[in-house]
Amino acid sequence: MTDYALELEALGKRARAAARRLGSLGTDVKDRSLGAMARAIRARSREILEANAADLQGARAAGLSVAMIDRLTLDPKRIEAMAEGIDVVIRLEDPVGETIRAWRRPNGLSIAKVRVPIGVIGIIYESRPNVTADTAALCLKSGNAVVLRGGKEAFHSNKSIAGILSEAAVKAGAPPDAIQFVPWTDRSAVAPLLKLDRYIDLIIPRGSETLVRKVTEVSTIPVIQHFKGVCHVFVDKDADLEMAERICLNAKVQRPGTCNAMETLLVHADVSEKFLPGVIVKLRQEGVEIRGCEEVRAVVPDVIPATEEDWEAEYLDKILAVRVVPSLDAAMLHIASYGSAHSDAIVTDGLDAARRFAAEVDSAAVFVNASTRLNDGYAFGFGAEVGISTSKLHARGPMGLQELTTYKYVVTGDGQIRE
Amino acid sequence: MTDYALELEALGKRARAAARRLGSLGTDVKDRSLGAMARAIRARSREILEANAADLQGARAAGLSVAMIDRLTLDPKRIEAMAEGIDVVIRLEDPVGETIRAWRRPNGLSIAKVRVPIGVIGIIYESRPNVTADTAALCLKSGNAVVLRGGKEAFHSNKSIAGILSEAAVKAGAPPDAIQFVPWTDRSAVAPLLKLDRYIDLIIPRGSETLVRKVTEVSTIPVIQHFKGVCHVFVDKDADLEMAERICLNAKVQRPGTCNAMETLLVHADVSEKFLPGVIVKLRQEGVEIRGCEEVRAVVPDVIPATEEDWEAEYLDKILAVRVVPSLDAAMLHIASYGSAHSDAIVTDGLDAARRFAAEVDSAAVFVNASTRLNDGYAFGFGAEVGISTSKLHARGPMGLQELTTYKYVVTGDGQIRE
Repeated sequence: MTDYALELEALGKRARAAARRLGSLGTDVKDRSLGAMARAIRARSREILEANAADLQGARAAGLSVAMIDRLTLDPKRIEAMAEGIDVVIRLEDPVGETIRAWRRPNGLSIAKVRVPIGVIGIIYESRPNVTADTAALCLKSGNAVVLRGGKEAFHSNKSIAGILSEAAVKAGAPPDAIQFVPWTDRSAVAPLLKLDRYIDLIIPRGSETLVRKVTEVSTIPVIQHFKGVCHVFVDKDADLEMAERICLNAKVQRPGTCNAMETLLVHADVSEKFLPGVIVKLRQEGVEIRGCEEVRAVVPDVIPATEEDWEAEYLDKILAVRVVPSLDAAMLHIASYGSAHSDAIVTDGLDAARRFAAEVDSAAVFVNASTRLNDGYAFGFGAEVGISTSKLHARGPMGLQELTTYKYVVTGDGQIRE
Repeated sequence: MTDYALELEALGKRARAAARRLGSLGTDVKDRSLGAMARAIRARSREILEANAADLQGARAAGLSVAMIDRLTLDPKRIEAMAEGIDVVIRLEDPVGETIRAWRRPNGLSIAKVRVPIGVIGIIYESRPNVTADTAALCLKSGNAVVLRGGKEAFHSNKSIAGILSEAAVKAGAPPDAIQFVPWTDRSAVAPLLKLDRYIDLIIPRGSETLVRKVTEVSTIPVIQHFKGVCHVFVDKDADLEMAERICLNAKVQRPGTCNAMETLLVHADVSEKFLPGVIVKLRQEGVEIRGCEEVRAVVPDVIPATEEDWEAEYLDKILAVRVVPSLDAAMLHIASYGSAHSDAIVTDGLDAARRFAAEVDSAAVFVNASTRLNDGYAFGFGAEVGISTSKLHARGPMGLQELTTYKYVVTGDGQIRE
């Protein structure tokens, strides 16, 4: 039997040693390693496909759903997309070494707040094997060592990809152990990993709310959380109703399974009669089921009655809860009570309503006259992301390269002491 | 018997409601409340002294040490200092609402990263009652609701101070429950508090390493940690030895009981014979006990031999471990192996050594030619601090008002959708 705690501690130590070297590695070496990684993914795609075939066989035998199997499946196109993902990271600016702020004290001391890598990042993820390549590339570019712990369905694929990436990176000049993969699928190997606070600085779980909760419960290492996205669009009394309809349709149907899709539509009572019939017809044309409050049903009688659970639901599906609210304040109270502080939008032409909504709604991203679907690293111009955080600390919203860094103070003097 | 979990949940909910209102409270209202708080502390000092007398009686009966009783004791001067501390916070700039960064996307979307309060902050602290006033003031100014949980020795003092502050703040316009005090000293009331992740956003424990570890172990809320300060000064071969001596004396003896005092002195072998005899004489004159490696003892024979434990020790006392190292690399390796990533200094005139030390030593604050004692919110110009963080995430080093905030994205468009 493997002593996971002992093996993981050794792995953690190696990661810490790699992190020490990565922290001061030049951008040129990092980019060269990333280039080698992308080339290796392309050159050794056959190996990856073979490993993936083993996972797919296991998945079919275990009776996994078609959707799960699709998420797991690799093909030459998806492998090429992985390599292209790494190419994109090469072109992103290296965040390390940036002086965030610098000032001088009256005693002549120069203080600089400088951007540095976090150190060692643990990624705990489920099913999709491309996460292995995406996160390894982002961690390397930001100067962090990474410890990858993928789900057991994708074990062979992840192991193959991680091995290929690590080999290529090291050959091109990255320190050994910059990219490590936890080679055990056993669940009992997770808890000791989450206790390695001496060696791992941050855990990013990517997967279901249940996974994130479990990780948070057990971990003594800080965890970046993404619980869920119960996102709202509030159509204000002064909204451009045509724009509101366009935004609502986009937020609900463009990709209903994503965390930044709208789950609840709030409509100001002054415009509900004018707005609701049209938007409900269009949403239904796209296959969306509508569940509404009594006031909605007064306008469109055949809407299914919404229950208390509907206000809290993250459907991730073509279902929409709709509520008529008497005021901006009522809309904001609804969002504070039922929302998940992820992405919430107002559609309005009223400056005061826009200002108040932006100031008072405490979500990672607040949108004025734009779709919640735009809460995304690419839409924000970050180039790539390791996910969206609903944590309030360290990183909030889309996490790009900068969110994989922290800072330190570099204080330079000529003999200053504490008086 | 009190059902702590239930009571604390109610307290958490009230704090969350207060936080919603505090987030958009004007600086004028916050400053007015702080002014009222300082005045109330002064006007009601007699009440505070009476409560403190009850604590002191209990402390003497429990046989607490003289040092502990001193930390606990309030007198008119210390109460005035508390009020002055609040006056200082009034004069600090309100961090809330600052646009940290703003940019425009090709599709016309305007994205602003805006500084906002964290929300609800839980402070878990031991003995010194002035923490109640300091943290309540800093949290209010930064727009956060605060839940205070002090140690049982100072229970009456803390409760009195918190009550007076809360009453004054609310009368002056702060929302009710902005400042709450946990009125139970029972240890079993702590765990449920640390699980209130729905209502509390951040826990800052202020106390011993044991307290911080326990809180980290139990909490599902992010914790800002301050474990310990095993701080180093490295005297390089190219050091100005007079400056090195001045810095070493300051770092060790100016206040040995603080976390940013030097615990280990590292000296480059090229200058050990020249530097050590003099500095050891001066340190001994200040009452410092020296424990050295063999090379130190070769230069100053009557030095006590240092053991492995000495390299890891946080003495917080007039004891110093001294080691001769053959190179800058060896010094940095020692710091990486034994240090606590708190405050580490190099004394050197070599630009390359300074650059490498600053880049490669991964501590909250790295000092070049200055004393480690300067890692401090006042020395950095923050005006006040809630403590120093050795966590790497969210806040590192001295935590002032800015470190009590987070950010959100405010995205403004004219109908942009996800394509």
